[in-house]
This record gives sequence, C-alpha cells and structure tokens, in this order.
Amino acid sequence: MSFVDDSTETAVAFAGMLADKARAISLAGFRQDLDIALKSDKSPVTAIDRDVESMVRDMVARSFPGHGFLGEEFASVNLTSDNVWVVDPIDGTRSFITGWPIWGTLIAKLVREQPSLGVIDMPALDERWIGIRGGACTFSNGGSTAACRVSECRSLDDASFYTTNILYFGDADRRKVEAILHRAAIPRFGGDCYSYGLLASGHVDLVIESDLEPYDFLALVPVVESAGGIITDWAGRPLNRHSGKQVVAAATAELHRQALAMLR
Amino acid sequence: MSFVDDSTETAVAFAGMLADKARAISLAGFRQDLDIALKSDKSPVTAIDRDVESMVRDMVARSFPGHGFLGEEFASVNLTSDNVWVVDPIDGTRSFITGWPIWGTLIAKLVREQPSLGVIDMPALDERWIGIRGGACTFSNGGSTAACRVSECRSLDDASFYTTNILYFGDADRRKVEAILHRAAIPRFGGDCYSYGLLASGHVDLVIESDLEPYDFLALVPVVESAGGIITDWAGRPLNRHSGKQVVAAATAELHRQALAMLR
Repeated sequence: MSFVDDSTETAVAFAGMLADKARAISLAGFRQDLDIALKSDKSPVTAIDRDVESMVRDMVARSFPGHGFLGEEFASVNLTSDNVWVVDPIDGTRSFITGWPIWGTLIAKLVREQPSLGVIDMPALDERWIGIRGGACTFSNGGSTAACRVSECRSLDDASFYTTNILYFGDADRRKVEAILHRAAIPRFGGDCYSYGLLASGHVDLVIESDLEPYDFLALVPVVESAGGIITDWAGRPLNRHSGKQVVAAATAELHRQALAMLR
Repeated sequence: MSFVDDSTETAVAFAGMLADKARAISLAGFRQDLDIALKSDKSPVTAIDRDVESMVRDMVARSFPGHGFLGEEFASVNLTSDNVWVVDPIDGTRSFITGWPIWGTLIAKLVREQPSLGVIDMPALDERWIGIRGGACTFSNGGSTAACRVSECRSLDDASFYTTNILYFGDADRRKVEAILHRAAIPRFGGDCYSYGLLASGHVDLVIESDLEPYDFLALVPVVESAGGIITDWAGRPLNRHSGKQVVAAATAELHRQALAMLR
C-alpha cells in the first residue's frame, strides 16, 4: 500500500492498518513463552515489543519516506519533519507478560509538533479508540464502531479516578496522589493507556500518572481531546514530545482544575 | 431443568448453567447507565449484583431444595446442609461500574464445608475457569477449553505478584505487602478474582489480599488447588466459610512459604 498525500483521511487509514498489523504480531505472542529482557530502567521488554515497533518503522519509511518516526525501542528518525509518527508497541508490557489482557498499542501522528491523530488499540479485548484533533473520537468494540464522549463529572467527590502503580511516584508526588485517591468517589489502580480510553468513553472521569514518556502519552491527547476531555501536564500545559513525564486527564475543565490544584 | 443427584458431574453442569445465566444478566448491564448504591461499608452495589444473586438463589432452591445458599447481597439459607452453593454475583463491582472488563461472577459448591467446586467466570472477556477438588482445572476462552496448570516459580525474586488496591490494607499489613511488592520481580496492582485465574493458568505466581469475604474466596480454592497451586489464609490455614479475610495464593509450596514468612 502506498500513500500520496498528508490528509487526515489518509493518516487515519494508515494508522488503522498499522494497528491491525500490530495486533497480528502481538496476539500471536500473548500468553506464550517469551524471553523477557530488563532494560536499563528495569522495565521489561520482549521480542514482541521490538517486532511491532520495527514493523511500524518500516511501514512509515516505505509509505511516507519524508515523515519522521519516534518509538520506544529503536532510534528516532527525522523528528524535525512536519509529520512524525509515534508508536508505543506494547503499552503495559508488565500486563502483557503476566497474561493480563489490559495492554495496548499506541499510535500517534504529530503534524508540526501537534498530536493530530491518536489510536489506542487493545488487541486482547478487540477494542480501539481513534481520536482526531478537531474531529471526533470513535470507539470500536468487535464489529461495532460509534462516536464516544467523556462524562460530565465536575467534582472530585463524584469522580472515578484511575492511576497506575502507586510505587511509580516519588514521595512528594505520592502524597498528593494519595490525597486524591482518598477523596475520589471511586479510586482505582492500574490501567496504562486503557484508563484514557475509558475516560474518552465516559466511564472514567480522571486519570493521573507520572513517569510517562512521549510515546506513552502523545496518542492519548487526540483521543481525550476529541472526546471532549482535557489532558495536560501537572502544571496545566499542553502535551507535546518535549513535555515532562506527568500527565493529568479529566472529563471536564472543573474537574481538571480541582486535580491541578491538588497536584501543585 | 431439575437435578436428581449430588454427583460432581451434576454440580459442574449446574454451575456452568448458572454462570451462563449470570452472564446474560451482567453483560446486559455493563457500560450502561446504572443506579449505584453504597452499602454500609461504602462498597458500591448495583441492581445487576442483586439480579444475578437472586437468579442463583432461586435456581438453587428450585433445583436442589435441600441445599444451602450463601451470597453477598441476600440472607443465607440452610448453611448446615451437606451441600451449600456460594455466589459472588459481581466480584469487582468497582471495575464493573467504571467500564473496566476485569470483573467476574464467582460460584462455589461446598460439600460438608469443603470447597469442592469453583467457577471464576469473566463475562466481558468470555473467559472461565472451573476447578474441581481432586480433579482438574480447565480454562475456557471463547470456544476453546483446555486443562490449565500453575507455573513452577519457586522464588519471590522471580515472581509476578498481584495484589488489589493497597489502600485496602491496614498500616501494619500494608508495610508487609509493600515489602513483598518491592522484592517481587513483577509487582502489580488490581485484579480481584481474575488474578487467581491467571495464577491457575501459570501467568501469575503469587496473589495476596486482605479484606475478602467467604463469597469472595471460596470459589477460588478449587480453581487454584486443582491447577496445582496453594491457597490459604495468612497463617497458612486452609480456607473455609469461617476463615478470616486474608488470602495468599501461590504457584508452589516454596513460594507460598516465602510469602507466609514475610506476612507474619
């Protein structure tokens, strides 16, 4: 397949094809005996992470030779291009290697540094969110696809709140997040990218995380924003590939403000 | 459907039918607008929890009038019977009400107080474990069913370890569990009943929880044991309906001993 333009429609079709191909690779390795290596930061990586990422890198190079590429496992390519593709091959590798089906493949396209398209694909659940900057967010579950929208939750006291492993936070941040956990109506742990998809579909109201890399969060931005939500760093600034590691996503501006105030 | 005997085969067929009927009820309510009530312990409950449980209670009363019944939401029946059915209609209600697919229905049969049959059913994932005391453990995923078996993990340093929300632990227990989290190869949060299923299938090596009720853990016992694992309270005693709230499940006796030593 080759592409001749940089339109949104083409980008969406290409991203969908990448996600389909990634699924075939990752599902073939899920719950199978895999060699697990530990990276320098002690995070695990498998051959599946590398196979998915190199497939995406090769497809981008072949289909859009002028575009850039940013991944988790391999060196970046041409990051100053107006069009840069970003992939996290397996977001939630710890889930993947423990048989837990909540892991995803994240694909984003940056246009002049702005996250303009985001895909959260959940192969083991057969679920996929696609968000388009300035457009709609869709959720597919098996054969059906429909537009999705965040909740109207405006107060932490009513909020379902997800955060990942609390051990990932430093002491000061941990105290802030624990205060939010104690105040939220439904505090929950775990999730990686999936929490942001559930936020886009209105099931979850607030997600706060630390220690994320650009390939972890860039795809989330168009999904959350096109579903009507807000996603920034802990200082309330928009996310781009130069952002720090802290992310807060909320269904409404009011809830986002409350969370930011407690994270300061 | 009526049953005329107390054989294991009959019990397995009946439990499978209960799980199928429970699925139909729970999946119809999943990700729909539901009224959520908070019980006296602040845990949420929906009409789905009550509908599933009353279906099971009615089916037991109709099919096995002499048998007892123990559930989460309604009063117990005839607990001194040689045969008692136990149900947790939605294990993981907090997951259920936040659109998270990791929630299950737990069904157990006690024979003279011993957990003799256990079902962990995951409707939103189309997965089911059935464990038979003195028999085999099977795992079904979609259309396929196969025997499953725990891992051979013998050391905490190599173990994938799941525990639920660390906020559920009191301070002293929390310190013990945090020490195990820091030592385990892959520490993970979340899970409810699903972690024990993944342990039975060899993907997870150790699960430690607190604050469980008999309807939460009785179905887990035959699943974990018939897959070759060990499940006890934190003092190493077998679990029955009189046990306390603390559960530890491990793939091997060595790993179980290590965990017990750190929980003392």
